[in-house]
Amino acid sequence: MTKASESDDIYWMQRALALAESVLYTTAPNPRVGCVIVRDGRVLGEGATQPPGGPHAEVCALRDAEGRQESVEGATLYVTLEPCSHFGRTPPCVDAVLAARPARVVVAIGDPNPLVNGQGLARLRAAGIEVTTGVCAPEALALNAGFISRMSRGLPWVWMKMAASLDGRSALHNGLSQWITGPEARADGHRWRARSCVVLTGMGTILKDDPQLNVRSVETPRQPRKAVVDGRFEIPEDARLFDGAEVIVFTAREDAAKSERLAQQNARAVYLPGNAPDRVDLPAMMRWFAQEQFNEVHVEAGAGLSGALVSAGCVDELLLYLAPVLLGDAAGMVRLPMLTHLDGAQRYEFIDTSAVGQDLRLRARVAENWRQLMQRVALPALS
Amino acid sequence: MTKASESDDIYWMQRALALAESVLYTTAPNPRVGCVIVRDGRVLGEGATQPPGGPHAEVCALRDAEGRQESVEGATLYVTLEPCSHFGRTPPCVDAVLAARPARVVVAIGDPNPLVNGQGLARLRAAGIEVTTGVCAPEALALNAGFISRMSRGLPWVWMKMAASLDGRSALHNGLSQWITGPEARADGHRWRARSCVVLTGMGTILKDDPQLNVRSVETPRQPRKAVVDGRFEIPEDARLFDGAEVIVFTAREDAAKSERLAQQNARAVYLPGNAPDRVDLPAMMRWFAQEQFNEVHVEAGAGLSGALVSAGCVDELLLYLAPVLLGDAAGMVRLPMLTHLDGAQRYEFIDTSAVGQDLRLRARVAENWRQLMQRVALPALS
Repeated sequence: MTKASESDDIYWMQRALALAESVLYTTAPNPRVGCVIVRDGRVLGEGATQPPGGPHAEVCALRDAEGRQESVEGATLYVTLEPCSHFGRTPPCVDAVLAARPARVVVAIGDPNPLVNGQGLARLRAAGIEVTTGVCAPEALALNAGFISRMSRGLPWVWMKMAASLDGRSALHNGLSQWITGPEARADGHRWRARSCVVLTGMGTILKDDPQLNVRSVETPRQPRKAVVDGRFEIPEDARLFDGAEVIVFTAREDAAKSERLAQQNARAVYLPGNAPDRVDLPAMMRWFAQEQFNEVHVEAGAGLSGALVSAGCVDELLLYLAPVLLGDAAGMVRLPMLTHLDGAQRYEFIDTSAVGQDLRLRARVAENWRQLMQRVALPALS
Repeated sequence: MTKASESDDIYWMQRALALAESVLYTTAPNPRVGCVIVRDGRVLGEGATQPPGGPHAEVCALRDAEGRQESVEGATLYVTLEPCSHFGRTPPCVDAVLAARPARVVVAIGDPNPLVNGQGLARLRAAGIEVTTGVCAPEALALNAGFISRMSRGLPWVWMKMAASLDGRSALHNGLSQWITGPEARADGHRWRARSCVVLTGMGTILKDDPQLNVRSVETPRQPRKAVVDGRFEIPEDARLFDGAEVIVFTAREDAAKSERLAQQNARAVYLPGNAPDRVDLPAMMRWFAQEQFNEVHVEAGAGLSGALVSAGCVDELLLYLAPVLLGDAAGMVRLPMLTHLDGAQRYEFIDTSAVGQDLRLRARVAENWRQLMQRVALPALS
């Protein structure tokens, strides 16, 4: 085996990450994982996690090598997430890796799933395989923040999509809001919907816009589910989002007959009352999502629900499309309790700025939430 | 003479632009110009415009070559703005260039000053010098948009500095606004103040913050002037901005005694009533600035004046510092008439996005205003 340099490791891990990215829309509730097997700068096999029930990335890459009649013995295997060591819907990947006898395994991040959590790597090391960890860790976490969050915090990773003018206005006073940002920004927004497990909105948006809440502007083999926060359980049963796709309606009022009728439309009413009348318990809703194996939640709501989610500490990331226009006294983006001091405000950190058509896409996240996930995926560097 | 390639031209013009940039704070009301004289890839001399009354860039570069005992004959001279052909405070640069007999002159943009306006280049061409135009034209215009605007439109180039939260809030309800953005953003804002000819604010800001309105966070050999829109002529005579620096107070009420007292503080009251009581005629104010040789106006005001300037079409560019924070129901950035349709809104185009400390600086400009200036500095490509 040739000793790989650090820049080689980064190069191959980036290829593995690109493979993982290629299955962004299809692996949930499993993580998106990519794997590349390399010897002397030559790819022997590569693969990415298949839809649930199908093989994981490592097995795909090993089979790919087999198909090419390449022996993996003594090669280096790059994988974006620690190989699993437990029986799930598929046998443990670590067994398949051990059987193939690579000389070295390079892993981006650990899997905080309590059934894995370092055990996969420990078994590789015990078999004399050299293990390197932490290569491209932030990029690997970004691809699977939802899965990692669910495994380590019992919460999904939640981003909130907003579109506004430069002065933070999301609609005119007369409600006109459809076209603040351009078609490219709307298509990009649909890409984020497509990668999520569920698109969440509030009753204000249902009543005002009656959205379909599905992915249309980009191709996807799978639609995310849809969810509505509807404290009074007043959603019209002919709302456009009921199109046969699975819908979850979170309520703070019980109505067995309505629940029954909705069930016939593939919609599930979930009763999660909060500590005020007609309020849904938002943190409990997020825990519910995680328990039900939702990794990523895409929020696309009005100022009311958006503000309530921010206030309840339920938002990890902002996905903000800014149009190059000033609107002045129009509707704001988030309704928040009045602050008397700036220290009281939720702070984020900017992580990305991209031009999207004539608009700008800003991403900002809660630094502390990200730091916690990074800690949970850190692996001992010992090899 | 060796035939220069297009990429060589861009390389040397960028060097000339960097020289012009180095005198960003000191040439007003003259343009910032840089000049590099090159032969066979070797610099013979270079220079940038000196403060008013001092030599222009071309003369500086020629003198620099002379000091190095280099003959400029047959060389290529790169200059960011068409050489002047008239007697101002200094003799015409074009005469000095002709005398030095370069083989070729490369110019970024034309000078729309009616006393120049292509005549400089015509004289060079008539003397058999090869002239190339339009190299790095957008960058050259950006350095002198104010001067070009004044010469071609009779208006300064006006940018409006704003600082806000991600949801477009510039202050809390209790007025607390000092620290929405961080120290790096404030220092960057002072760099923009420093390059301007005048910092303009409104009475709301004077009464609320009593700002000094000068440049403190960065070093500058020259302070911009200060100006206040004060329709009712109610500015306190002990306001902190009266520190001996020149101040202009635009009013819609006459008060000879107050004007007299202000004059003793180096402040000038300018009576420019608009078409409503106690309103200053904002477009007339901008024309006044241009007549008085102000190239660039830096606006730093509250939502009232900011909105009025936007509504009056007086703003060419937005300089927006966004803090990664959500503030909810707090004070907005601009007060504008209520819109009933998005087509009624002033549209901008994003031209730059930069991280500044933890904040983001966005620049956006009125595309049509920029396009007009670009047209005015275009030069015939004939050579």
